[in-house]
Amino acid sequence: MSQVFGNGRHLSVGSTAPPLTKGKLRLYSMRFCPYAQRVHLVLDAKKIPYDVVNVNLSAKPEWLFDKHPLGKVPAIEFEDGTVLYESLVLCEYLDSISTTRPLASSDPLQRAKDKLVIERFSQFIVLFYKMYQDINALNSDDVLQSLEEFEIELTKRDSPYFSGTRPGMVDFMIWPWCERADMLTIMAGDRFSLPEKRFPKLLQWKKFMKEDEAVKCSYLDVSDHVKFLKSRLAGTNDYDMLVASL
Amino acid sequence: MSQVFGNGRHLSVGSTAPPLTKGKLRLYSMRFCPYAQRVHLVLDAKKIPYDVVNVNLSAKPEWLFDKHPLGKVPAIEFEDGTVLYESLVLCEYLDSISTTRPLASSDPLQRAKDKLVIERFSQFIVLFYKMYQDINALNSDDVLQSLEEFEIELTKRDSPYFSGTRPGMVDFMIWPWCERADMLTIMAGDRFSLPEKRFPKLLQWKKFMKEDEAVKCSYLDVSDHVKFLKSRLAGTNDYDMLVASL
Repeated sequence: MSQVFGNGRHLSVGSTAPPLTKGKLRLYSMRFCPYAQRVHLVLDAKKIPYDVVNVNLSAKPEWLFDKHPLGKVPAIEFEDGTVLYESLVLCEYLDSISTTRPLASSDPLQRAKDKLVIERFSQFIVLFYKMYQDINALNSDDVLQSLEEFEIELTKRDSPYFSGTRPGMVDFMIWPWCERADMLTIMAGDRFSLPEKRFPKLLQWKKFMKEDEAVKCSYLDVSDHVKFLKSRLAGTNDYDMLVASL
Repeated sequence: MSQVFGNGRHLSVGSTAPPLTKGKLRLYSMRFCPYAQRVHLVLDAKKIPYDVVNVNLSAKPEWLFDKHPLGKVPAIEFEDGTVLYESLVLCEYLDSISTTRPLASSDPLQRAKDKLVIERFSQFIVLFYKMYQDINALNSDDVLQSLEEFEIELTKRDSPYFSGTRPGMVDFMIWPWCERADMLTIMAGDRFSLPEKRFPKLLQWKKFMKEDEAVKCSYLDVSDHVKFLKSRLAGTNDYDMLVASL
């Protein structure tokens, strides 16, 4: 459903923002950003037509600050020039404007509970980002423990996905970091991999998620995620490493 | 609308959670917590019957962790034992279950925009909390600048409140820190007070807000906020300073 400008190349300082495309909303993204991936997942799941402008976050285009006051991605620009940002705000709004494949529960209490599950996942996100700062400070017990309540939650919900028989809002909001979770094993050792006996539901969920058509649209192999991380750690930030030469 | 247990005394480690009251939801709170105040404001504005159990956050009751996985306030327990937490999730949910005085916009786009305004206010919240850590590191230019976009937003909205002619979700979600804003002047000097010429709308809004009946329910004078802050800085954490002796 998406059209990517410039073969996916990340626009930098000094660039010009491409004009909007009629009949499509515009997602400002970065190919490896998990927050932006949340929005890709929702757009792809709901088959909302959009185009993508990727942005170099180490040398931000000046115009990015017209879209987001802090010059961040994801941000979405609508045909009338309205801009929204913040991944959770965006995903909730996008879910509300299209009836195709509703992602959030229609029950307000369940929706509130689901938001708390997403909020609780930030524990794992915080640990995950230690990989970028001080990987040696990362404790595998902490990492596994931060995921344990998701194993319990899936067991309690007694369904293949957090949202039932098909991935919904919770599934998509936590997926980007789960897609990247094996980076921890590659970067810091096997003690970070989830033991089958302790996480049977979560591992099965992950296998199922990879088969979802929306997940497939933005999915990257862990080797690509690691390659990009290494370029970040080396200070080269190879945003365009997947851009095929024209 | 609220009934406060134990004359408002904050329950500590070793205490027992009071039994729920029939026909009321239970708010776990702390008298000086701005996040908890958000929930008080919504409950009071919507006239939802509730009782309050205040909690000593420096010596948390063991049972608090059954209500909130991290033992935080605010948390709400409903009559059926369901517990929800996180101030924004709570306020949104409470608004959805009662049609009395709807606080969030019924338009999804406006609701998304309002969420971004609330999110942007976190800039000020971050600066505000520097008062607790290193008040000398606090720069008045940064503080005033973080509020400037709210002056602009009010001007753009051309209404006395962010939500129109009556306080709504944005107004109540940012109010607790605005009620406390003069603490900065008292603690760090006049350069932190908002100049009338630069912030006419915001100062007028603050005056109007103090007249709202829901705001009046939880309002505390800045001198009380400062007194509590000083007890925190001194390590005595005088949670019960406003509890009248029985």
